[in-house]
Amino acid sequence: MDKKIIVTISREFGSGGRDIGRGVAERLGIDFYDREILALAAEKSGLSASFAEDIEQKIKSKFLHNIAFGGYYAGADVSSSQLSLPDKLFIATCDIIRSLADKGSCVIVGRCADYVLKDRDDVINIFIYADLQHKAERISKRHGLDIKKAESESKKYDKYRANHYDYYTEREWGNRENYHLCLNSGFIGVEKAIDIIVDTVNDCLK
Amino acid sequence: MDKKIIVTISREFGSGGRDIGRGVAERLGIDFYDREILALAAEKSGLSASFAEDIEQKIKSKFLHNIAFGGYYAGADVSSSQLSLPDKLFIATCDIIRSLADKGSCVIVGRCADYVLKDRDDVINIFIYADLQHKAERISKRHGLDIKKAESESKKYDKYRANHYDYYTEREWGNRENYHLCLNSGFIGVEKAIDIIVDTVNDCLK
Repeated sequence: MDKKIIVTISREFGSGGRDIGRGVAERLGIDFYDREILALAAEKSGLSASFAEDIEQKIKSKFLHNIAFGGYYAGADVSSSQLSLPDKLFIATCDIIRSLADKGSCVIVGRCADYVLKDRDDVINIFIYADLQHKAERISKRHGLDIKKAESESKKYDKYRANHYDYYTEREWGNRENYHLCLNSGFIGVEKAIDIIVDTVNDCLK
Repeated sequence: MDKKIIVTISREFGSGGRDIGRGVAERLGIDFYDREILALAAEKSGLSASFAEDIEQKIKSKFLHNIAFGGYYAGADVSSSQLSLPDKLFIATCDIIRSLADKGSCVIVGRCADYVLKDRDDVINIFIYADLQHKAERISKRHGLDIKKAESESKKYDKYRANHYDYYTEREWGNRENYHLCLNSGFIGVEKAIDIIVDTVNDCLK
């Protein structure tokens, strides 16, 4: 691959977005980054990965976040003692995502990567979603939960993701305007989603 | 084509959605319906096509619509004298869309067709969108307008479409949940959008 391309995958919980991202990276022969970004950002912020995950999920809404953390992060230094832990973590995450994008073609799952890389012209942003039934079936199978519990987990994590994204980007998570393709994996399936993305990326690289 | 498939295309003004719909219909060798649905619905409601278009655009918001027309349409008869003109027109449109879908495979552009056909399992719903710059360039070229005017036309007609859809469906126009694929035609281009849709439909028909 001569030209560089960064594929960001945002996804609803249980939509198979991670598998789709991994499949795209494999088919294109490029790097794949998912949870390791948070682990690296945690390390950079002096936190454990599990504590970092916990912190992210505490962002319940802009209002609560502002009360809890008094967030201000734009242009701030991650080492600043005035920053809240979630804000430090977010800044560290942004730095890591930018470094990975500079390094070479890759697929990045989650972590507001579409927003972090918004000023680059070598990025294609994908949103993967599905109806609740498909998501719950997938979660139930993967995590051994009954369907009702899987449904509530799906809703809960999608709320976490939306709150986190909306808070840090001042955009709306899942709004088409932020993405180049939005694919319903419950309808088209994981393999077809991989086909469409790979095919679109190859067209961009022509 | 043995199995039947109805492709509904919802689209932002200037996104090339109509051309994409026509291209999909041609490639699949199936019928294509666009403005003729409104003309047929107008005829059924005893209105001229241009007056029907004008009426549709008067739906500025739920609130204004309710004041202006006191809308109630669910399960109503198009000949009822209690119905407002927009409501009569919408009911006639629904009837026509359902008849067309019963008749055979086709592409239907606009007119809330995804909602009207929501209980069928042989429908694939597409949303076509683009950034303002791409839409304005397209509108400017097609209608000979300067870019600023094209931008304001794009925003105005998207607002009409959103208001009309949201009023009659109680869903949100352009929200991914209502569609199987949402494609940014400004990024991928009209031809690629046609490819993706035709390919996805052919997969559904396997």
